[in-house]
Amino acid sequence: MKKYTLGIDYGTLSGRAVLVDVENGEEVCFSVVEYKHGIMDTYLPGSKVRLAPETALQHPGDYLEVLKTAIPEVLKIGGVSKEQIIGIGVDFTSCTVLPVSSDGTPLCFMEEFKDRPHAYVKLWKHHAAQYEADKFNEVTFMRGEKFIDRYGGRMSSEWVVPKAMQILHEDEEIYQVMESFIEAGDWIVMMLIGEEKRSLCQAGYKAVWSKKDGYPSKEFFADLDPKMTNFVEEKLRTDIYATTDCAGHLTKSGAKLTGLAEGTPVAVANIDAHVALPAVRITEPGKMLMIMGTSTCHIMMSEEEHFIPGVGGVVEDGVVPGYYAYEAGQACVGDHFDWFVKNCVPKDYYEEAASKGIDVHQLLEEKVKNQLPGESGLIALDWWNGNRSILTDADLTGVLLGATLQTKPEEIYRALIEATAFGTRIIIEAFEKGGVPINELYAAGGIAQKNEMMMQIYADVTNKEISISSSKQAPALGAALFGAVAAGTARGGYDTIEAASEHMSRLQDKVYKPNSDYVKRYDMLFREYEILHNYFGKGENDVMKRLKAIKNNAMRAKE
Amino acid sequence: MKKYTLGIDYGTLSGRAVLVDVENGEEVCFSVVEYKHGIMDTYLPGSKVRLAPETALQHPGDYLEVLKTAIPEVLKIGGVSKEQIIGIGVDFTSCTVLPVSSDGTPLCFMEEFKDRPHAYVKLWKHHAAQYEADKFNEVTFMRGEKFIDRYGGRMSSEWVVPKAMQILHEDEEIYQVMESFIEAGDWIVMMLIGEEKRSLCQAGYKAVWSKKDGYPSKEFFADLDPKMTNFVEEKLRTDIYATTDCAGHLTKSGAKLTGLAEGTPVAVANIDAHVALPAVRITEPGKMLMIMGTSTCHIMMSEEEHFIPGVGGVVEDGVVPGYYAYEAGQACVGDHFDWFVKNCVPKDYYEEAASKGIDVHQLLEEKVKNQLPGESGLIALDWWNGNRSILTDADLTGVLLGATLQTKPEEIYRALIEATAFGTRIIIEAFEKGGVPINELYAAGGIAQKNEMMMQIYADVTNKEISISSSKQAPALGAALFGAVAAGTARGGYDTIEAASEHMSRLQDKVYKPNSDYVKRYDMLFREYEILHNYFGKGENDVMKRLKAIKNNAMRAKE
Repeated sequence: MKKYTLGIDYGTLSGRAVLVDVENGEEVCFSVVEYKHGIMDTYLPGSKVRLAPETALQHPGDYLEVLKTAIPEVLKIGGVSKEQIIGIGVDFTSCTVLPVSSDGTPLCFMEEFKDRPHAYVKLWKHHAAQYEADKFNEVTFMRGEKFIDRYGGRMSSEWVVPKAMQILHEDEEIYQVMESFIEAGDWIVMMLIGEEKRSLCQAGYKAVWSKKDGYPSKEFFADLDPKMTNFVEEKLRTDIYATTDCAGHLTKSGAKLTGLAEGTPVAVANIDAHVALPAVRITEPGKMLMIMGTSTCHIMMSEEEHFIPGVGGVVEDGVVPGYYAYEAGQACVGDHFDWFVKNCVPKDYYEEAASKGIDVHQLLEEKVKNQLPGESGLIALDWWNGNRSILTDADLTGVLLGATLQTKPEEIYRALIEATAFGTRIIIEAFEKGGVPINELYAAGGIAQKNEMMMQIYADVTNKEISISSSKQAPALGAALFGAVAAGTARGGYDTIEAASEHMSRLQDKVYKPNSDYVKRYDMLFREYEILHNYFGKGENDVMKRLKAIKNNAMRAKE
Repeated sequence: MKKYTLGIDYGTLSGRAVLVDVENGEEVCFSVVEYKHGIMDTYLPGSKVRLAPETALQHPGDYLEVLKTAIPEVLKIGGVSKEQIIGIGVDFTSCTVLPVSSDGTPLCFMEEFKDRPHAYVKLWKHHAAQYEADKFNEVTFMRGEKFIDRYGGRMSSEWVVPKAMQILHEDEEIYQVMESFIEAGDWIVMMLIGEEKRSLCQAGYKAVWSKKDGYPSKEFFADLDPKMTNFVEEKLRTDIYATTDCAGHLTKSGAKLTGLAEGTPVAVANIDAHVALPAVRITEPGKMLMIMGTSTCHIMMSEEEHFIPGVGGVVEDGVVPGYYAYEAGQACVGDHFDWFVKNCVPKDYYEEAASKGIDVHQLLEEKVKNQLPGESGLIALDWWNGNRSILTDADLTGVLLGATLQTKPEEIYRALIEATAFGTRIIIEAFEKGGVPINELYAAGGIAQKNEMMMQIYADVTNKEISISSSKQAPALGAALFGAVAAGTARGGYDTIEAASEHMSRLQDKVYKPNSDYVKRYDMLFREYEILHNYFGKGENDVMKRLKAIKNNAMRAKE
């Protein structure tokens, strides 16, 4: 009897289940369920209370719907019995958190709280806790706290503590009533196994926990707000589990919810980016994975812990036990090209693409792919959505330089692609300077699989070989790998994530190799990018911040 | 019997004649003749000899065609007899020069030279004499020549001497055979009156002649090339005439050519930009005219001579006798917006414009005109075609800064317009710092008349009132004014250009007045423009030049 595991992957707008053959990693089939409530950023369901700016909430019922619908669906499509499922892995966007009672009931499910915004899930991209993040940073700085060095020196408004602080400030009753403030990934595992087993990956990256030092001190939390003195004990948990641990086994109610067999092992939850590494055969240092979508997330490992300015996080055992895992990010990649195609491509290009039966991205690529690096005379700074790594500054904005009356749209398009590649190189060089060498690149995500010109540019700009995931759903596959580890060899899985990766992960045959002539040309362009990056990004000319201030002033004047 | 003058205006692609009522300046009618040979930049007519890069030639026969066709045409349309024409004025693009024999026959009309590129007219935008301009600048610098201060410190490859040097270097026989190297405007006057009467305006701006010092010395020319020692005496002329002078009277052959009466007074030739001042009522200092088309030319007067770095020229009596006239320029204005509309406006904007029955420029204006200054967060450097004043650097390129994923095409369009306005303010401030105050602005040209948002932006950015020419052909009208001065009161014209301007020029009723709130907002944005202008334009970061070098290297590698 063939054995399978399930990877349950929760994204920003939908969740999916994928059925994976444990022996060889074949993705037999998958099912996607869109969240009925999507992202709630204006109103709560059935309510006329207007949500505050920068709010981004979700409904936990939508997550349960994925379990109820997608899992039975893949069993049916795959023609597989529930007994053949030997393990389940879950990954989730993060930091996506919700307030729950001690038995895991979301406060928003309770009649008395259903009209209270703070009773709902705060999605990772909920940015309304900036005031709290600023306060956190101030307290950290005043106290000379060292834990923040693991996070590039700054707390993000996206993470657990500012989000909890916002609840306390704006709706204290919710803060007091909640018995756990839990990552949605951990909550899903809790729904399956009936127990709260918090993930090391989520606690490490988003809740300033570390294996060595635990959470910040009570004194620190008291300085944030005296009411938060016992925040860790009261709202978080101190027992933290590795992602390679088996969190527990499917309860009766979990089995009923999913249609799977009671007792099926469930892995500790994982973050959607980090979970993907073993799915592209990365289980050791020196290899950086780029997960390329609307934005790009970079994850890699090292044998040592280094604090690298501007880099988002370093977590011991964060991906594979025994190694320190690092993450960095670029805020605008696919979004960048989509913006360009939507706003800046002339009519006749659309007509030409239509007549050739290709999309506009392909047409632009076709028109410009044979240019040599530097042939357009253009250079751009890829800050259309601010800069995540290594400048961590949301107020930075995009630049295009070198335009002439001969400049063509496809040349601008390529300059934007090159800019994101230069941004990646800045990150790589920061890691290497910081003591984390990177020898090879790996890429996953739709853009990486579709855009050959782009991947070749990345290889030439970084002077590194790039291997591409053969899975189109690397995070879901990764979750299935962790599910196989939760099962262990005793049940037909694997005892280590390395072994699971060896058997269940695959890469495309095609490897992008740097072209030495292009590498030299891009070296020259990268120096120019770096000069502009430092000039505009490191305080020499704060024009972008001043323009934002002028803009905000103009917006207010119009109100 | 009503009296009229004719303004004959030679542009880059066509020439026109306009019939003007001397009493009130009414433009009765006009006729335009396109140049049959246009701009010759690849082949000579009927020849297979490929022209060198940057070459831009014209055929003098095309200019005669304007006289032959357009003049009889306006007499006919206007229902006016040749006796009613009391004077003729001519203006021409400059420096547009041709080699001729002593009787004015263009060398290219001679059978033996008709296949020789250097026998033809070199149009103002012929840029193939850069090597010679560099040499000229080197010699000027080594000799410590002061005359160059009148021209902002640099010789342009567009002007007379480099163009003559190029002929000497590349086709010495043509250089030796030519008995005059003459501005096309002066040549047309010669065709009409049978004598060579060189214009002060053209000699002053383009042939480094000044009323005070004449031409540079023989020693200077000898240092350029020993064969050019007597260049002034042999190829130019030392008797120079004010543009308010009557050059002479129509000869029998001139009368035959034009269908006008023998003896009709003809004014000394003028440059197409400078001639327009009296046509918009400017005959005194403190008023700057912007002639806005594909590029913008700025002309103004002062009672004093000042040397202003980066400003194209100061010529005593250059427009109105008694004053020093100054010129400056921006290389890319209308071209800029056309580039944008052609390359960067998405399909649905074209469809929306079509459905509203307006053009895309109008649609963009409609979408963005109600924004406050700074509301887009964008700023641009208007260097898509290099920078003429005050940086005089063709290697500078365009910049757009401040883009986000929310940036709309109309916001970029407006940022480009604002950038040209900031560029104008840089010029105005350079004049004012240099001792040439500017109190009011005047604008002529299609863009000035059509684009209200743009003119209001210029008023707000410069904090000056802007009056607009009511003529759609201000240079042609200006030429007609000078024709009326050539006639003098004795024949029913005027004795001074001031008097002609008072009676024959008109402005639109609408004056653009600065909005004080917008002025303050633009002041903030202008400071940012200035910082970027100086950073990229004055050697602090020569990234644009390095990108051009990288680009040229790439182009060569592909050959």
